Amino acid sequence: MRLKELGERRVISRIRRAFSEPRTDILIGIGDDAALVKAPRSLLLTTDILVEDEDFRRAVYPPRLLGRKALNVNLSDIAAMGGRPLHALVGMAMPGDLEEIWLRKFMAGFRSAAREAKVALVGGDLSQADQIMISVTVTGEAKSPVTRSGARAGDRIFVSGTLGDAAQGFRLLEEGGLQEKGRGVRPLIRAFLDPVPQLELGALIARRKLASAMIDISDGLSVDLAHICEESGVGAEVEASRVPISSALRRFSKDPLALALNGGEDFELLFTVRPAKLATVRKLSSRFKLTMIGRVTAGKKIFLVGSDKKKEPLRAGGFEHFR
Amino acid sequence: MRLKELGERRVISRIRRAFSEPRTDILIGIGDDAALVKAPRSLLLTTDILVEDEDFRRAVYPPRLLGRKALNVNLSDIAAMGGRPLHALVGMAMPGDLEEIWLRKFMAGFRSAAREAKVALVGGDLSQADQIMISVTVTGEAKSPVTRSGARAGDRIFVSGTLGDAAQGFRLLEEGGLQEKGRGVRPLIRAFLDPVPQLELGALIARRKLASAMIDISDGLSVDLAHICEESGVGAEVEASRVPISSALRRFSKDPLALALNGGEDFELLFTVRPAKLATVRKLSSRFKLTMIGRVTAGKKIFLVGSDKKKEPLRAGGFEHFR
Repeated sequence: MRLKELGERRVISRIRRAFSEPRTDILIGIGDDAALVKAPRSLLLTTDILVEDEDFRRAVYPPRLLGRKALNVNLSDIAAMGGRPLHALVGMAMPGDLEEIWLRKFMAGFRSAAREAKVALVGGDLSQADQIMISVTVTGEAKSPVTRSGARAGDRIFVSGTLGDAAQGFRLLEEGGLQEKGRGVRPLIRAFLDPVPQLELGALIARRKLASAMIDISDGLSVDLAHICEESGVGAEVEASRVPISSALRRFSKDPLALALNGGEDFELLFTVRPAKLATVRKLSSRFKLTMIGRVTAGKKIFLVGSDKKKEPLRAGGFEHFR
Repeated sequence: MRLKELGERRVISRIRRAFSEPRTDILIGIGDDAALVKAPRSLLLTTDILVEDEDFRRAVYPPRLLGRKALNVNLSDIAAMGGRPLHALVGMAMPGDLEEIWLRKFMAGFRSAAREAKVALVGGDLSQADQIMISVTVTGEAKSPVTRSGARAGDRIFVSGTLGDAAQGFRLLEEGGLQEKGRGVRPLIRAFLDPVPQLELGALIARRKLASAMIDISDGLSVDLAHICEESGVGAEVEASRVPISSALRRFSKDPLALALNGGEDFELLFTVRPAKLATVRKLSSRFKLTMIGRVTAGKKIFLVGSDKKKEPLRAGGFEHFR
């Protein structure tokens, strides 16, 4: 059945039923003019939008994973503040001839990600458009938030996980012919389709005050490091040989470093650490797969240092909308 | 200049500068992974989306007024809960070849509505799409929220303002040729283009506990009254002769009552009042232009009562997406 046959009100009432788990912090949930929740004194607010053919292709993106990603990219922003997510609102515009099963799978994915992170869907809005557009807003609590602006010369720069996998996964999906490439591409495809927000790591870093600045890598290391440097009024040096690259990326990309630097959509955490905290962070490095990739400098420029110790400017070459 | 020439980062930094008024309740504003605000214990959350060619046409909708409306439709939801709005987040997807001046005017309108309501823009996201899509999320405070579910048989039904003007204004805009129709159409056009959220009225009703149920009329009286009846488990009778219709609507519409009942986009408040509170509400009727249009009944059906006292079912014939 298509959405226009089902009708807006039935769509909403199905979503409402699927998300009606009781929670003591939700005084009024889906179904009134606004939701009413018990909020913490220090409230995080963040919003992200996903647009068909810009951020995803309907033909290749499983709706269940898209539902997970629509929430998880927001949760990654909460993780980057060292926060704990609480509530979500979702606005969607969809074509009237979209199959209802698509939306059902999307919402099932959204719900699975929400349950994992203990997030409650409390409101939303639906409209019609030629392209699918998804807007998600998330609230959170941050007792000791980590901003982008606290980095200081001498701090070390860390990232979680490996970089560039999602960008290569996206490329492989665009090229098609995945079956010929075999199982080895799976971790790359998954990194793009189903990124994992680093909520536990972000919260731990915040609680133990390990980072002087933190951001999630959504636009690519080069762009997001530039954000930290700009907001903190500092520069940086990144050692090319230290940038964490997965074996799958090495195998399937001709220039894995370029993807790791500029690829985007990794949703890993990038953070800076004062020298006094280095030992503590290093102790976490096995549990969370953390890698020191460089250091913060007094100048305002960002350099990439090669294995020959030569420095070249690291240009922010990430993804931009409005092309 | 077009957005794709200006570039995403410059667009964001302009918006950030335009909305950088200091407020003691904003600990971290635009420019980090998430905003951090001081929140009230009871927090309202609501979100609304507007889609080009579905909710507005770019060719006829002044961008400044669209910016006002994008915020004000959300503020109307806050008003319907009897709340006070606090913060806003905005997600926008726009074509890359959109003129930057369009966005500047849109944001100027958004800002003017935000200032009127003392709302702070604290975050957002931008993407690219073929149609303009705007998603706004608003937080608010509600010390004594009014839900949709408290109506009881015997309550009287009130609306603020006049109904159907916005729907007729929309029709006139679609038809074109406004100049020939003269000045008389202006209130109708304005009702559609620049609706006013009833924040003061909603807050007063909540503070003085005058309403047993309340909703804003966004989908049309028939639909929104049905929402109250459904959530409250009651029915209603609306007297056709009492439905408030403006002189402009009478002049320019062949069936003003149908528009007033089903038109939508009025953003007036619809609320139910216990008999004991009637005198108090009537005293407010001049200041806020309130009209008693009917009463809540024990059955679950909604009737329209004609001047001949004949009853007919009032069908919920409002606007529905997914066509």
